[in-house]
Amino acid sequence: MSVVVLGTVALDTVKTPYGRRSHILGGSAAHFAMSARLFTPVDLVAVIGDDFPGRYLYFLRKKGINLDSVIKENGPTFQWEGEYKKDLNVAITLKTELGVLASFRPHIRETQRNIRHIFLANVDPDIQRHLLGRMRSAQLIGLDSMNYWIDHKRRSLLSLLKKVHIYVANDQEARSLSAENNLLKAARCLCALGPRMVLIKKGEHGTLFYSKSFIFLLPAYPVERVIDPTGAGDTFAGGFMGYLAKSRSINQASIKKAIAYGTIAASFNVEGFGLERSGSLRIEELERRLAGFKRLASFK
Amino acid sequence: MSVVVLGTVALDTVKTPYGRRSHILGGSAAHFAMSARLFTPVDLVAVIGDDFPGRYLYFLRKKGINLDSVIKENGPTFQWEGEYKKDLNVAITLKTELGVLASFRPHIRETQRNIRHIFLANVDPDIQRHLLGRMRSAQLIGLDSMNYWIDHKRRSLLSLLKKVHIYVANDQEARSLSAENNLLKAARCLCALGPRMVLIKKGEHGTLFYSKSFIFLLPAYPVERVIDPTGAGDTFAGGFMGYLAKSRSINQASIKKAIAYGTIAASFNVEGFGLERSGSLRIEELERRLAGFKRLASFK
Repeated sequence: MSVVVLGTVALDTVKTPYGRRSHILGGSAAHFAMSARLFTPVDLVAVIGDDFPGRYLYFLRKKGINLDSVIKENGPTFQWEGEYKKDLNVAITLKTELGVLASFRPHIRETQRNIRHIFLANVDPDIQRHLLGRMRSAQLIGLDSMNYWIDHKRRSLLSLLKKVHIYVANDQEARSLSAENNLLKAARCLCALGPRMVLIKKGEHGTLFYSKSFIFLLPAYPVERVIDPTGAGDTFAGGFMGYLAKSRSINQASIKKAIAYGTIAASFNVEGFGLERSGSLRIEELERRLAGFKRLASFK
Repeated sequence: MSVVVLGTVALDTVKTPYGRRSHILGGSAAHFAMSARLFTPVDLVAVIGDDFPGRYLYFLRKKGINLDSVIKENGPTFQWEGEYKKDLNVAITLKTELGVLASFRPHIRETQRNIRHIFLANVDPDIQRHLLGRMRSAQLIGLDSMNYWIDHKRRSLLSLLKKVHIYVANDQEARSLSAENNLLKAARCLCALGPRMVLIKKGEHGTLFYSKSFIFLLPAYPVERVIDPTGAGDTFAGGFMGYLAKSRSINQASIKKAIAYGTIAASFNVEGFGLERSGSLRIEELERRLAGFKRLASFK
């Protein structure tokens, strides 16, 4: 079954110890889609500006991503510029230019409104709520956000959390929104805000999944050459939601497997700038690395 | 089979968000021993001052720890004073008074020199080397150190590393000694310095084990009420070495299991001040929590 993802499609300028790339394709929804497409059809809901390169649209389409609900507005595409120094876990934002994102109101095609799996990737919570209101048969709704919205649109985010099933946050966001330093306490607190599942991404330290019925911990796959970590969290979420959308049922086993797929997809993503690596990724490569990962992370 | 542990026995003064304790029993060797004793007989090699409370000696002896090579010198026992604020991962050292540790030369009983499993817990590398020179039939030697020795006695530490089989370090120490930020690269680099196994402790994020033949990743057991993290790393090492000393052979399965035991022992240790919790710990409790941990951390 398909997944609808709402979020940003961006032009990223990134500098890391391995080099610099200007105006490459990025954004939360683009990274999510590139990973989810390995498991299931993906419908993208986003806005681009009139400067958006045609070759990027061609690239997304060629990867099988449905762009029917990507709207083009007059003005510049959302741009992010950032740098990673020696510690690749820390992104330093140098510039953010909203461009057409500032006045974005998502449109979704009539037929897409019946899609049951929905991921609200990082974007203004009011925009996320707007899209959610348009969906007719939501069965599994995931949500990601960021510190900026936690600080500036807290009420809007809290009201949205009551309507979603899975909240995906990084460790800082989880601590900030819950006001708990201990991640297990933070996860429980976030669960009490509405979502019945909470997924805390800890970057190179892996993932903590929390629900009332079970907890699951998974390390990250160890990557030696981290070229550019931008979008790793969205890639993780894409693998996770993509696998769940494909699975027949959502239970402990499928959730654990979805987290493992998300982890492996993210490990590929960081091995190249932007979508370089995840754009060329095939499911066979993912499966192969997953098999190796099981040996690394299992004991009796 | 027994384990000999060399290290500090200290009087710790600790403040955490859960309270304050003055002059409680601590030190790298004491924490190690309290965990290793659950698996195997432990012989402690350390120095104490003439102010060392008799009740602490009684307590250690009652736990079955052999104190024949604990020497008492004139002067104050080694003291450490530290604080943990909201982020319990960061210890702030307020005071360190070496006392009798400053002139410590380890003595070991003739019969103990034949013990095959040796752990050199954190103490001056020259003292570690001195003890190692006295051992006759070393079969498995583990070593821990700290940033102070990496910075101030680097050559001594590097020469010692060539003689040990397992180097146990936290992530900061591993990065500092290897000059590599990526932990996988750091572990490989440390392995090239001598030890055939490297165990990097990442605190609340778990452990990375590296050897030429295999890698193993394990998350930490999630603890909700971290009362006092002092000694968690030594407790981990004690469980790890204690289990290996008890095992008949050292192979992939026994190493993974030893790491899991160390992880669980450490999770108990942080639930009380000093040795409060690990001092009363029974192997049945450890086994029970380990069984739960397997469910938390395994997937198919």
